[in-house]
Amino acid sequence: MCKAVIYVTLRESVLDPQGHAVQGALHTLGFQQVKDARIGKYIELTLDTKDRQVAEEQVKEMCEKLLANTVIEEYRYELVELVEG
Amino acid sequence: MCKAVIYVTLRESVLDPQGHAVQGALHTLGFQQVKDARIGKYIELTLDTKDRQVAEEQVKEMCEKLLANTVIEEYRYELVELVEG
Repeated sequence: MCKAVIYVTLRESVLDPQGHAVQGALHTLGFQQVKDARIGKYIELTLDTKDRQVAEEQVKEMCEKLLANTVIEEYRYELVELVEG
Repeated sequence: MCKAVIYVTLRESVLDPQGHAVQGALHTLGFQQVKDARIGKYIELTLDTKDRQVAEEQVKEMCEKLLANTVIEEYRYELVELVEG
């Protein structure tokens, strides 16, 4: 078993209205020191795959096909092998 | 300047319908090896604060007040100091 942690974020050049709204809300709450806010997705997948390399290729494919919109988003991931005890 | 990276995830005991939908979609695409999927939020804040301890307290307060619903979600964060060059 493998755990994949995937971070999907908007590309630097893409406007982030959700982040903008969060920044505004934080300002309203008195946190004036917040200069920028960007929101992304955090995805945890449990994979029934033993081979690390296979898992890596699969995660890449899942990101490209479904989890990230690579036109406006970029992704990075980490793989952790789960030791069965 | 400080960068805070915040991860907001649903508590283990809370059902994740969005994650369930993603898992279903991945199965439909042929990724049968996905045994579980959980979706969270990934938030990047740029803070105009020099003192690390102050920044940490502020981030904690922002999470408690706005960014996370602590009844069903938990959060963790990382702080990185941005060196101005």
